[in-house]
Amino acid sequence: MFPKNAWYVACTPDDIQDKPLGRKICGESMVFYRGPEGKVTALEDFCPHRGAPLSLGRVEDGKLVCGYHGLEMGCDGKTVAMPGQRVRGFPAIRAFAAIERYGFIWVWPGDIAQADESKLHHLEWAENPAWAYGGGLFHINCDYRLMVDNLMDLTHETYVHASSIGQKEIDETPTKTEVHGDEVVTSRHMENIFAPPFWRMALRGNGLADDVPVDRWQICRFTPPSHVMIEVGVAHAGHGGYDAPAEHKAASIVVDFITPETETSIWYFWGMARNFKPDDAELTASIREGQGKIFSEDLEMLEKQQRNLLAHPSRKLLMLNIDSGGVQSRKVIDRWLAAEAPQVTA
Amino acid sequence: MFPKNAWYVACTPDDIQDKPLGRKICGESMVFYRGPEGKVTALEDFCPHRGAPLSLGRVEDGKLVCGYHGLEMGCDGKTVAMPGQRVRGFPAIRAFAAIERYGFIWVWPGDIAQADESKLHHLEWAENPAWAYGGGLFHINCDYRLMVDNLMDLTHETYVHASSIGQKEIDETPTKTEVHGDEVVTSRHMENIFAPPFWRMALRGNGLADDVPVDRWQICRFTPPSHVMIEVGVAHAGHGGYDAPAEHKAASIVVDFITPETETSIWYFWGMARNFKPDDAELTASIREGQGKIFSEDLEMLEKQQRNLLAHPSRKLLMLNIDSGGVQSRKVIDRWLAAEAPQVTA
Amino acid sequence: MFPKNAWYVACTPDDIQDKPLGRKICGESMVFYRGPEGKVTALEDFCPHRGAPLSLGRVEDGKLVCGYHGLEMGCDGKTVAMPGQRVRGFPAIRAFAAIERYGFIWVWPGDIAQADESKLHHLEWAENPAWAYGGGLFHINCDYRLMVDNLMDLTHETYVHASSIGQKEIDETPTKTEVHGDEVVTSRHMENIFAPPFWRMALRGNGLADDVPVDRWQICRFTPPSHVMIEVGVAHAGHGGYDAPAEHKAASIVVDFITPETETSIWYFWGMARNFKPDDAELTASIREGQGKIFSEDLEMLEKQQRNLLAHPSRKLLMLNIDSGGVQSRKVIDRWLAAEAPQVTA
Repeated sequence: MFPKNAWYVACTPDDIQDKPLGRKICGESMVFYRGPEGKVTALEDFCPHRGAPLSLGRVEDGKLVCGYHGLEMGCDGKTVAMPGQRVRGFPAIRAFAAIERYGFIWVWPGDIAQADESKLHHLEWAENPAWAYGGGLFHINCDYRLMVDNLMDLTHETYVHASSIGQKEIDETPTKTEVHGDEVVTSRHMENIFAPPFWRMALRGNGLADDVPVDRWQICRFTPPSHVMIEVGVAHAGHGGYDAPAEHKAASIVVDFITPETETSIWYFWGMARNFKPDDAELTASIREGQGKIFSEDLEMLEKQQRNLLAHPSRKLLMLNIDSGGVQSRKVIDRWLAAEAPQVTA
Repeated sequence: MFPKNAWYVACTPDDIQDKPLGRKICGESMVFYRGPEGKVTALEDFCPHRGAPLSLGRVEDGKLVCGYHGLEMGCDGKTVAMPGQRVRGFPAIRAFAAIERYGFIWVWPGDIAQADESKLHHLEWAENPAWAYGGGLFHINCDYRLMVDNLMDLTHETYVHASSIGQKEIDETPTKTEVHGDEVVTSRHMENIFAPPFWRMALRGNGLADDVPVDRWQICRFTPPSHVMIEVGVAHAGHGGYDAPAEHKAASIVVDFITPETETSIWYFWGMARNFKPDDAELTASIREGQGKIFSEDLEMLEKQQRNLLAHPSRKLLMLNIDSGGVQSRKVIDRWLAAEAPQVTA
Repeated sequence: MFPKNAWYVACTPDDIQDKPLGRKICGESMVFYRGPEGKVTALEDFCPHRGAPLSLGRVEDGKLVCGYHGLEMGCDGKTVAMPGQRVRGFPAIRAFAAIERYGFIWVWPGDIAQADESKLHHLEWAENPAWAYGGGLFHINCDYRLMVDNLMDLTHETYVHASSIGQKEIDETPTKTEVHGDEVVTSRHMENIFAPPFWRMALRGNGLADDVPVDRWQICRFTPPSHVMIEVGVAHAGHGGYDAPAEHKAASIVVDFITPETETSIWYFWGMARNFKPDDAELTASIREGQGKIFSEDLEMLEKQQRNLLAHPSRKLLMLNIDSGGVQSRKVIDRWLAAEAPQVTA
């Protein structure tokens, strides 16, 4: 169960640079490519001739040419031409709304008529040259909501990521969860603590002492359908914490786009945006590598948690205070799902 | 759905040279071996004692000895002996009709009483010393009829095999499909074109110039249950094309025996028979290697097409003029299936 | 179908030395670890908080700490603590009876209230310093009863293990099967034969001539739920066979603990106990290596037999005299299963 009338990250421009990309999203097998004038296009990955996957074809002058018998598909799902054939009566395949923005290709797996570019939230860090971004993609066999839970409750850092970003004070510091319309914000502020290894590295990378007490914050923001941005950072203690001036802190935004593949698998686009040393490509690469290692620690846990839940479908899980970010996020998702459900009128 | 009262290629003599072979054909797990006097034998791969696969056993004096507890099985499916046992009351296992001919082992997965050697069509190239044959085996996860479609519509060469045997003129030249009883013939004759790389190589191998215009032909012959032989070749233009004298052409027969394993998987025996330089083993090996590479290009397409069709079972495919070879072949198959269906009388 | 109110081998102390072990036994996902004072503990592998597998956690002061969010689980399945939480109302998870004995961890997958240590049979070889033991673990995809059949009918040695312990005389010598309560004993005594390679090696290792006639015995003892101990050995002929004095023979006990994982897969703990040269670690290692090779020969046979039986669920297997050990063992198992079935009263 996922909202279908929503924007999801489908892939990055790299993925469709040389050839079409086949990827299943929200249960739909899609093909992504650049159509006329380079416009990103998403279609059903199914040639109307014999059912071949169009993603095994190639792009020619903005038309997708089926790799089996040469049918030329237009970006609206209607066949344009086929050698030796009149194609006017060919059945159309489904076209999905797709846009390119913020360095990603976004797709709307639901009703194309309802697709609305203005519903894609603004991502300041992706457009402002003062910011740099690096990230990657994991395929994980779990319900996308388990990953939302994971990201809205960072107490797991203490256990899953003990050697990098975890520290006991995360557990000990309560969080506050607020709901603003469809946005859910869970925040935690730890004061006068010592930074864990990842943040000591970030302090040094930022030209700051790493052996003095710091204030540390984590502000998780869920927005539907399943995106979580987390403001994270440390500031030398006594300078205002989250509000400290830039010269006293190292801060960034953890970026998580969670795209369901099926009911129990996801494409997990993870990354980090930072507004310091944005032109330092080496730093971007090293942060990306470190984050990739840390985030890969969640995979086994989430996949085995999913298997446990499938084996015990009727067992109720606990909803503790630390879970309130996930609980509230699921309520927003449920509201979106209800809005998409077929309406019954008396 | 496959005809069961028909001859299929099961394996080659090599496969049963040293030990029995276990292979599932048309949904039946079978064991193949040489029985008394070397006669090829096909039985259910199931020991009546404890259900062990007989294919893990060994052959001794023409008897198949179970590798678990030594039961000796006869070529009629009746137990011959077992250490310390009286075997007369042992239940028989199923025996299948099997014959060795044309360099292959053939099996009749249906009713053994109806098995008729005379129904195996004559293969001139396999018996005439003027011909040489080389081939191989692929396991592919698709319905056998998708491979029949593939072979009866060679426009796919232009796209799937673009760098070897494909060329634009295939698309541009219409085909003619004829049905003669149970045989379906789809033919295409291209005149005054340039040969693609594979055929230039064949011309050179045959001592002919490869840089002059040629006539090229493709004559696909389907015979049930699922065999496709394709006469292919090129002749220097102006010498009569298909009917040109041997010294002006390079020609061969593409041999395709498609044996269903299950409803959605096949054993695909492919090869090429040629009537030039039949004793040149090096040429046989090099053609076989080239053909193996070309034919492997179809695998991904067919397996993903199959998955697409399973995901959309109710969607209708197009039946274009280029598909008529496949369409007519499926009609023959349907007729055979209908003939095997249980009869209902009023 | 397996008895649940019974002791099964779950793992060895090595398996839980450094971290908890997750293992499915009799269909139950369990976590094994050492609780307070090192006592072995078995719980459901399911954190009551969010369903994470507890086996991904760690042990701290005898408490199992969930690796996801730090819940501390007690050895009775009740949550002891969790950072920032009152845990009194947390639902308990299931605890299983577990004991450590004879160098193994044993678990009782059924009703913990009925778990009775006295029901674990005495294993002399595991406690007496005159004996040495070496063994290993295989995972095999078959019903545990197929392995019981295998071990209670050693005629398969002639075929499956032809090059090591098999010999024609096994087939030719009838067995005797006796049932004593829940114990089934199948024995075979071969007289004045030549020893096969494995036993010639054992004779030499024991300082005895390997080129003279021997008496050989095999005494298979099944005890429920699914343990098979086999007394095996050879003695120089004419000294009393099984009853010969120690200086004339090489003997040992083949140890087989068969623990169901699911209905069609097992954890197979195999090994050998010997009462000669018990302190010779090199000999232990070499026997273990040889036995591992021999026992691995059964894997393919059992897994393919299982697949054959699943494909033909209604086909009846034969129950020959050589099968009587397995047949009688299955009767004992059926009796145990019936005793566990819900009682219906009139």
